[in-house]
Amino acid sequence: MATATPEAFMARALTLARRGLYTTDPNPRVGCVLVKRRQIVGDGYHVRAGEPHAEIHALSDAGDAARGATAYVTLEPCAHHGRTGPCAQALIEAGVNKVVAAMQDPHAAVAGQGFAMLREAGIEVECGLLEDEARALNPGFVSRMTRGRPFVRMKMAMSLDGRTAMRSGESQWITGPRARTEVQRLRARSSAVISGVDSIIFDNSRLTVRASQLDLEDGEAIARRQPLRVIVDTTLRLPLAAACLSEPGRTLVATCSRDGERRTRLEAAGAEVLCLPSGVDGRVDLVALLEYLAREEQANEVLLETGATLAGGMLDAELVDEMQLFVAPTLLGGEARPLVALPGLERMAQQRPLDILDMRAVGRDWRIIARPQRQSS
Amino acid sequence: MATATPEAFMARALTLARRGLYTTDPNPRVGCVLVKRRQIVGDGYHVRAGEPHAEIHALSDAGDAARGATAYVTLEPCAHHGRTGPCAQALIEAGVNKVVAAMQDPHAAVAGQGFAMLREAGIEVECGLLEDEARALNPGFVSRMTRGRPFVRMKMAMSLDGRTAMRSGESQWITGPRARTEVQRLRARSSAVISGVDSIIFDNSRLTVRASQLDLEDGEAIARRQPLRVIVDTTLRLPLAAACLSEPGRTLVATCSRDGERRTRLEAAGAEVLCLPSGVDGRVDLVALLEYLAREEQANEVLLETGATLAGGMLDAELVDEMQLFVAPTLLGGEARPLVALPGLERMAQQRPLDILDMRAVGRDWRIIARPQRQSS
Repeated sequence: MATATPEAFMARALTLARRGLYTTDPNPRVGCVLVKRRQIVGDGYHVRAGEPHAEIHALSDAGDAARGATAYVTLEPCAHHGRTGPCAQALIEAGVNKVVAAMQDPHAAVAGQGFAMLREAGIEVECGLLEDEARALNPGFVSRMTRGRPFVRMKMAMSLDGRTAMRSGESQWITGPRARTEVQRLRARSSAVISGVDSIIFDNSRLTVRASQLDLEDGEAIARRQPLRVIVDTTLRLPLAAACLSEPGRTLVATCSRDGERRTRLEAAGAEVLCLPSGVDGRVDLVALLEYLAREEQANEVLLETGATLAGGMLDAELVDEMQLFVAPTLLGGEARPLVALPGLERMAQQRPLDILDMRAVGRDWRIIARPQRQSS
Repeated sequence: MATATPEAFMARALTLARRGLYTTDPNPRVGCVLVKRRQIVGDGYHVRAGEPHAEIHALSDAGDAARGATAYVTLEPCAHHGRTGPCAQALIEAGVNKVVAAMQDPHAAVAGQGFAMLREAGIEVECGLLEDEARALNPGFVSRMTRGRPFVRMKMAMSLDGRTAMRSGESQWITGPRARTEVQRLRARSSAVISGVDSIIFDNSRLTVRASQLDLEDGEAIARRQPLRVIVDTTLRLPLAAACLSEPGRTLVATCSRDGERRTRLEAAGAEVLCLPSGVDGRVDLVALLEYLAREEQANEVLLETGATLAGGMLDAELVDEMQLFVAPTLLGGEARPLVALPGLERMAQQRPLDILDMRAVGRDWRIIARPQRQSS
């Protein structure tokens, strides 16, 4: 460790937490570093739901050296008895002197309880070091706990003139293999992947994580957890032969249709069918869908991979938290399919401004990460 | 000079040449550095057509010190008697020892004559040092001399989803003030600005260089030379009240129309009218137009500022050498106007691949510089 500052120790804890990027779901990614006399005496991170939390790994790594140490942890230690005992209790029992957390638990009902338990035991507690970085690591978990819905990331592949497919629907492949690997990684970190039924009909997308395309050392292990596939299908038009229905993992069809026979056939083909109310436009109520996914499926991050209509609907409803646009260096012309349908947008004053967060080369393509500016709220 | 290498001296000559970026037209931008015992003893650059060439300025700067020096010059010294005497002769008379040029004169009929004159006088000659950089400084001059037509730079301002205006035509302002300053500078370095008549009808663009918007120290001097405004107007629909007709500088209307009365009225309103043959699509033959501009107007770089139809026509004819896209961080939606019309492009295999040369922030917008890949040739 070049400079033994609190920031450097917390940065190390964040780096460790990131190792759980693809595997902790539905839990948050958390890292922990134990420091004594400016030396790291133990560290660890949360690997997988059902396995020990980061603090437990770090304490076990440090052994007796934990006594008198300072614990740097990227999230407030838990105070509840979950599948593993409360981490705050474990830190107390190990005799740590001080706990520095990057952020409080975002769940309002339990926030501060871990800190309180520590303080009652006479342990010094600080909170807020590198908090922005810690929150950015778990946008989905934070969103689910604070807003009751997942963090929605919209991914689209387009030409430089903003086209996602030819008029015929032909679209394979606009972007190159490096961009497709990045999309695979976005799927792998997501709890669910949402698509519109028309995208499935056109492309017969499988919406799965493929170990071979992740280009990660532990790709095989990562691909064992498949994100929930969610098809928005207001009138139950999903073909029974859709490729995604015979892939590993679950496919949830969100519909407003009450057609029991169609439902039965889709279920027989491997789908789960969820009836939801319709929104003002007569289609599946997207807020209800997202709230369902957070509440019933513990969905943290969801990836929206779809066409112009559903994408536009999500944007119009201000439900998109982040856009990742993969831009291929090519032109498809004015007849090709648009990126997003935004019906009713007819004057410049109604444009949808974005904040560009990042723009960089990904193989022969470019990735732009942007955030829609909130119009209301 | 930190490192007194030949590359460093030529780089210095190129930096000097760049000072003429907005003023040498129709001449090339050229710089010259005289070096003796690894020290610069004189330098200069071509400032303005009709004034001395770079070599003459450098020799005059060096005075007697030029004797025995090496001349680093970004372009082969001329051997012809133009408005100033031949530079090769001046270098000989000043007693330089050696001439290092970045590139040969691109004009096939005179290429090598300057070098020959120098060699006959016993002066050592080298050519090719930083040649790519030297060619990039004068893309228009090189194009005119080697292809008989100008270098065509297409500028467009668009939203992130590839839209240039609302369906109604409303477009002011998609991009911010920094991007508009960059567009002003692109105009200022161009011999001509080409637009389609529909763009003029919709936006009433003036197509002028405005000193106040250049954000350059010598903006007033630069704006004294206005690029030729060229309106592609197959059927002479240009309004007599078009703002560009009453601006300083010339407006050339390129047409296929033989309507003498309309022509006379446009001429009375301040336009020059040029009759050209029509191409296969019945519109103004764009190759004929570009060849005319090179031959009769000595146009080096032309800036294409227009809408989807003419832009698509130029791309389809493979006449676009460079695209500069100013991308605003906003979405305008699927109903807004497309970047380029490419009729007949219906399959992915027909897409128009680009090479991205540069992508960077310009104020709140982004500028992408790209080059269409040649399909034929």
